[in-house]
Amino acid sequence: MAAGAREPISRGEGARRRMLEAALQVLDDDGLPGLTMEAVARRAGASKATLYRRWPTVGALLVDAMDATFQPFPAPDTGRVADDVAHLLAAFVELLDRTRFPRLLAAFIDAAERDPELAALHADLTRRRREPMIAVLTRARDRGELPAGLDPEVTTDLLTAPFFYRRFVAHRPIPPELVPEVVARVLGTGAGG
Amino acid sequence: MAAGAREPISRGEGARRRMLEAALQVLDDDGLPGLTMEAVARRAGASKATLYRRWPTVGALLVDAMDATFQPFPAPDTGRVADDVAHLLAAFVELLDRTRFPRLLAAFIDAAERDPELAALHADLTRRRREPMIAVLTRARDRGELPAGLDPEVTTDLLTAPFFYRRFVAHRPIPPELVPEVVARVLGTGAGG
Repeated sequence: MAAGAREPISRGEGARRRMLEAALQVLDDDGLPGLTMEAVARRAGASKATLYRRWPTVGALLVDAMDATFQPFPAPDTGRVADDVAHLLAAFVELLDRTRFPRLLAAFIDAAERDPELAALHADLTRRRREPMIAVLTRARDRGELPAGLDPEVTTDLLTAPFFYRRFVAHRPIPPELVPEVVARVLGTGAGG
Repeated sequence: MAAGAREPISRGEGARRRMLEAALQVLDDDGLPGLTMEAVARRAGASKATLYRRWPTVGALLVDAMDATFQPFPAPDTGRVADDVAHLLAAFVELLDRTRFPRLLAAFIDAAERDPELAALHADLTRRRREPMIAVLTRARDRGELPAGLDPEVTTDLLTAPFFYRRFVAHRPIPPELVPEVVARVLGTGAGG
């Protein structure tokens, strides 16, 4: 599903991206309460019927818009788990710093409290976002660089959660040295040293 | 400021609590967009002027309502840091499971994206919520149970963030064994064993 940046974009795909971009703009301006099919159609200069052909509900549209802001990182494989993990976390910090991803995530967090279907969709997006980290940890465990009993799921929680927490709960800056510090504390190993 | 449950409640304090309760109900029903001074006054059966005398802005009212859902835990002091930390984390998991705190926090997370003043207020609430954990870790470091170079702030991030992450981002259950597992992974020590 991950299309390379250079591939030609079909007309249908171009229209789809315009509608997702319109949805993101509506979200930016009016927040989740303003995200209606009508508002997105107006912003995109499309008909509501065109939107409904692609997305049966606003929830489905929101999930696709969220997905579009998130480019999956390929799992690095340097042969050194601390470096692979630090690489993934640095890319994630950049996502938090420089894209619309955090604002969308914040909208999801609030909406999921009232809408179990959105919570399930969000859980699925999160699961997919975690895959490269799980792959890196599993590979390192299998080659003996991490303890045989290590749980890649809990380890992924421990590695990534502090960055979400700083950004959304503590509202504190994420200094560059936090990445190697978290890696060293969680894996019991230094990154690059 | 923490009043004991048995202390008689003054008339002014009773009125204040009724208004905060009304604000929480409005938030539950209509989310943050519905939280206006007018809606809270109507729900509380009070005048808008009465509300404005206590809270100059909706943001100030929201902060007090959030604070009212959160009873600060006294910092335990069993002499064993893993037990003290596990105790605090278990109380926190209960707060996530059984109170309105998570819904309010979710509303804050979203609103803080658009309102820097709310973000600053939320950062301050978070800082106060962290104090017992910081105290427990600092005491254990000072008596030599934790390494002299340990940073209580980052350690508090590592210990608490996974629970926020599970609840708000991964939307996965928090099994009771997650508390001792996180404590053991972060402090390099078992809890109670």
